[in-house]
Amino acid sequence: MKKGLKQLMGSGMAVSLLTLSLAGTVSAADSATPSTAPSSVPSKNLIVLIGDGMGPAEVTAARYYAKKFLGKDRLELDGGYYVGKATTYSQASPYTTESGAITDSAAAATAFSTGNKTYNNAISVSNGDVAKPYASVIEAAMKQGKATGLVSTDNITGATPAVWASHVRQRSNQNAIASQYLNSGVDVIFGGGKVNFTTKEDKGKRTDKNIIPDFQAKGYQTAFDKKGLDAIPVTAGKALGLFADAEIPYVLDRTDTVPSLPQLSQKALDILSQNKNGFVLLVEQGRIDHSGHANDLPANIQEMLELDATFKTLVDFAKKDGNTSVVVSADHETGGLSLARDNVYELNVDLFNKQKHSYEYIDGILKKAQTADDIRKIVADNIGFTDLSDEEVQLILNGDGSSYGRGGGYNAVVSKRLAVGWTGHGHTGVDVGVWAYGPIADLVKGDVDNTDIAKSGAKVIGADLAAATKELQDKYLYPMFKVTRDSKTLFTARSLAESIGIQVAWDEATGTVTFTKDSQKVSVLVSSGAITVNGTASAWVGNVDNGKLYLPLEAFNQLTGKTYTWDSFNERIVKN
Amino acid sequence: MKKGLKQLMGSGMAVSLLTLSLAGTVSAADSATPSTAPSSVPSKNLIVLIGDGMGPAEVTAARYYAKKFLGKDRLELDGGYYVGKATTYSQASPYTTESGAITDSAAAATAFSTGNKTYNNAISVSNGDVAKPYASVIEAAMKQGKATGLVSTDNITGATPAVWASHVRQRSNQNAIASQYLNSGVDVIFGGGKVNFTTKEDKGKRTDKNIIPDFQAKGYQTAFDKKGLDAIPVTAGKALGLFADAEIPYVLDRTDTVPSLPQLSQKALDILSQNKNGFVLLVEQGRIDHSGHANDLPANIQEMLELDATFKTLVDFAKKDGNTSVVVSADHETGGLSLARDNVYELNVDLFNKQKHSYEYIDGILKKAQTADDIRKIVADNIGFTDLSDEEVQLILNGDGSSYGRGGGYNAVVSKRLAVGWTGHGHTGVDVGVWAYGPIADLVKGDVDNTDIAKSGAKVIGADLAAATKELQDKYLYPMFKVTRDSKTLFTARSLAESIGIQVAWDEATGTVTFTKDSQKVSVLVSSGAITVNGTASAWVGNVDNGKLYLPLEAFNQLTGKTYTWDSFNERIVKN
Repeated sequence: MKKGLKQLMGSGMAVSLLTLSLAGTVSAADSATPSTAPSSVPSKNLIVLIGDGMGPAEVTAARYYAKKFLGKDRLELDGGYYVGKATTYSQASPYTTESGAITDSAAAATAFSTGNKTYNNAISVSNGDVAKPYASVIEAAMKQGKATGLVSTDNITGATPAVWASHVRQRSNQNAIASQYLNSGVDVIFGGGKVNFTTKEDKGKRTDKNIIPDFQAKGYQTAFDKKGLDAIPVTAGKALGLFADAEIPYVLDRTDTVPSLPQLSQKALDILSQNKNGFVLLVEQGRIDHSGHANDLPANIQEMLELDATFKTLVDFAKKDGNTSVVVSADHETGGLSLARDNVYELNVDLFNKQKHSYEYIDGILKKAQTADDIRKIVADNIGFTDLSDEEVQLILNGDGSSYGRGGGYNAVVSKRLAVGWTGHGHTGVDVGVWAYGPIADLVKGDVDNTDIAKSGAKVIGADLAAATKELQDKYLYPMFKVTRDSKTLFTARSLAESIGIQVAWDEATGTVTFTKDSQKVSVLVSSGAITVNGTASAWVGNVDNGKLYLPLEAFNQLTGKTYTWDSFNERIVKN
Repeated sequence: MKKGLKQLMGSGMAVSLLTLSLAGTVSAADSATPSTAPSSVPSKNLIVLIGDGMGPAEVTAARYYAKKFLGKDRLELDGGYYVGKATTYSQASPYTTESGAITDSAAAATAFSTGNKTYNNAISVSNGDVAKPYASVIEAAMKQGKATGLVSTDNITGATPAVWASHVRQRSNQNAIASQYLNSGVDVIFGGGKVNFTTKEDKGKRTDKNIIPDFQAKGYQTAFDKKGLDAIPVTAGKALGLFADAEIPYVLDRTDTVPSLPQLSQKALDILSQNKNGFVLLVEQGRIDHSGHANDLPANIQEMLELDATFKTLVDFAKKDGNTSVVVSADHETGGLSLARDNVYELNVDLFNKQKHSYEYIDGILKKAQTADDIRKIVADNIGFTDLSDEEVQLILNGDGSSYGRGGGYNAVVSKRLAVGWTGHGHTGVDVGVWAYGPIADLVKGDVDNTDIAKSGAKVIGADLAAATKELQDKYLYPMFKVTRDSKTLFTARSLAESIGIQVAWDEATGTVTFTKDSQKVSVLVSSGAITVNGTASAWVGNVDNGKLYLPLEAFNQLTGKTYTWDSFNERIVKN
């Protein structure tokens, strides 16, 4: 059907207004006119790049390296893309006394994927005794018919990718996350963490089954090394690549058989960009964080530079494509890195490139060392320090007092010589940077919160987070629960009841809690847990633990007339 | 004279183009149309606010406090003004092996006041054996007839204010800086550091004279406390306020007689804004840095909050005025602060407001403590910790091993309880934030270098840094020099000669260096230092030190025919 003139004019005007309102930001990075005219939303495609643990000092450290050893004036990230910074705090834990002042990756990633704050450990579910799922921008984009992808150098079931396509109360439930991917509809899944897809027979951690064949049955092409990745055609549609049992090795420790993050990202772009409705792609450099936890700056810098190279791959695509927004940020800083330490105004940048392998690789060798001379040789071989003091050798032999052992001692020695400091092995609360290209830049500039990244991402591609969230919440509830000694699963009674519209009353005189909904009544004698249904004793038994009453799901179904079921694998109630 | 229509139209068009190109940024902070139409440059007035030592984590820490204890959602700084971040590195020192990877305040402030990198310690002079002065935006603005002001909570002769109106090779030369202020033309000078204006008789550090009367003779109204400040009329024109012998006390330690930074800034604005040609004002919160050096977070937060309140004062003025650009940044981070430490995902924000006085105040009391119980009582009185462990008491009694002594031990104990970490007592290299309001915002956004702040500041008010610099360089040279045992001042011969167009030749056979300019020839026998002028022996004697030849100024004057003189007080050569 031929379009009328008026329709064309209307569309043209929309484009021109849009160009005007976003001109300032777009021109900062690249003033070229997009080659494909935008439709009614600013961008057809969205790419989110996360540097896990990439705080401000990590970025500066990588730049020092790039200037000294790569002959570059600046990082790729520094080329006009920096637009603001984001707060990272999470919420108080429902399990511990943690205040949420310092986020973990799960809460931070839930924030920037779904637009909602939650507690540390939560994978895209809300806070509280009865959590509700939050949809991510990827889940909302699927409803628009967009292709989607998750790429990481971490386990692909790690928190940062997980939040985009799965929902669990505890990030450690990685087998469930892998299984949820299978039914998520995500098209491209590239990362480490094969162990959560396979059983013990295949060196995996699952007790049910190897689910890789299930992915293949759903049309996913699979790859397990660089060669396999190269063999996946751009027309694959769906692809699952698992390139390591756990994390993909550090840049310093990789062999040629392992693809790099730019290579993984390029392949994901090649596949996803075949979709005429556009795509959303999450890419995570996951090991800036790991090397930060360990306090290994030379490894950290190489991971940072891989993120920087990945950014170039992604933004080059976006520039060529002309219809893509790219946003880059971090979940938090890791390790409390500072450049310079003690009271010396110096940084030994000339030593930043001397390390051959990461602490992780070296720790395996250090563990076998018997003597001081063994230690000296291993360190000299790895980083060229041939003059270790007795004190330094002892620190390595004894470890740094953390779980990093001798590897930690090694990192402490190296950090001191490089003149960099760390304040621990955990996360810190400093605001993280935000970089962007394309129309999203205008939406995430200045001082933002990490939740603004999800909100802006959804807005820029016109995805409806609320609708996708409603759809999920109509299906699932994520309550706190306990499993009794006789293997019955019980749920926190008051909070679950209230969340599904059941009235709760406490009778002090009889020591009874009564739950009412319409004509149905369930009473529980808290002293014994005995349950009466509409006046008749039942076989069900409740349980009081730490002042909280727990009841079986049947009691709630009795009250509501529903047939909710418990999905113990995913630890959630399925509403229908 | 009445303007013609064409002139008015031309001016109107310029305004409208300007508005368009800067609209994106201006609207971020305040979309109101300026009440005064700009002339041919974007801003009539420029305000630069520096948080000395204000790294990313210091900003985040203050926000945690503001949210917890001030009932604020955010800092004033967070209100849409954040535009980018700046690199801070300086240059290799001509005196030591320092590489310049980590800046000091002098080099950083020279960068953001003059637009030039230099070595640590330099106050607005170039790097090298023979340094040249660089003009600051304030010095360039004076040529435009603008009023100018320097306001700081540090000594007003400290590096951050000094670079705007003085030039010395070593920042420690604070008496010279004070004297240069006298002849600088700067209209408003408010800060601490009275000791560099007075002699021993007045508790000062000068050996020549008390120069406060000289300021008064030049028309400066003077003030030495809050009451004195209040008494200065807005029509004063010129004002010198010295509110402490050294630094103005920490916010936590101040009495009512000491004005706050917002009060000082408001008074400066009141006076400077009387000038119809506009003004340039530098305001420094100087003690974020000091509390960072000491690792005293509770004091640091209060200084940060004072900067934040000062920002509000300044930006409120700018919004009302409609013709003012404001830019905020830092010289560097101090202390390597991180929020959270060790391996705990927590920050004890609830303890951030418990400290009554700074470590500096408490150290004076701790020094007198004789017993563990004394220590316990002092700490309990100051911050409410009544359960110090024996280990904590010992740490305070013994000090932290740094020059901060017991005050340092106290800060280490407090930091651990607050769950914040530091990596030392010095500066660190992380990029610092840039905030802006008004037309300058568009010029300093994204990734910038600290030199871009000066360049953008000059541009936004139309000040000519190059012309002002040329004028200074026509007058002064800042060579390396040495003073011999018989009190003669000698200068590095080769570098000084080359910098003023004298040819230098070395004759191996005779061991003679020959300097030639036009018909003049000076030869030096390096073994004895004997000097021959145009073939005739002279009474002058040279000196070789560390492989460098030094000569008296007379030798250079002989060669050039000039009458350069040595200003030993300011350690510079005066060309005429």
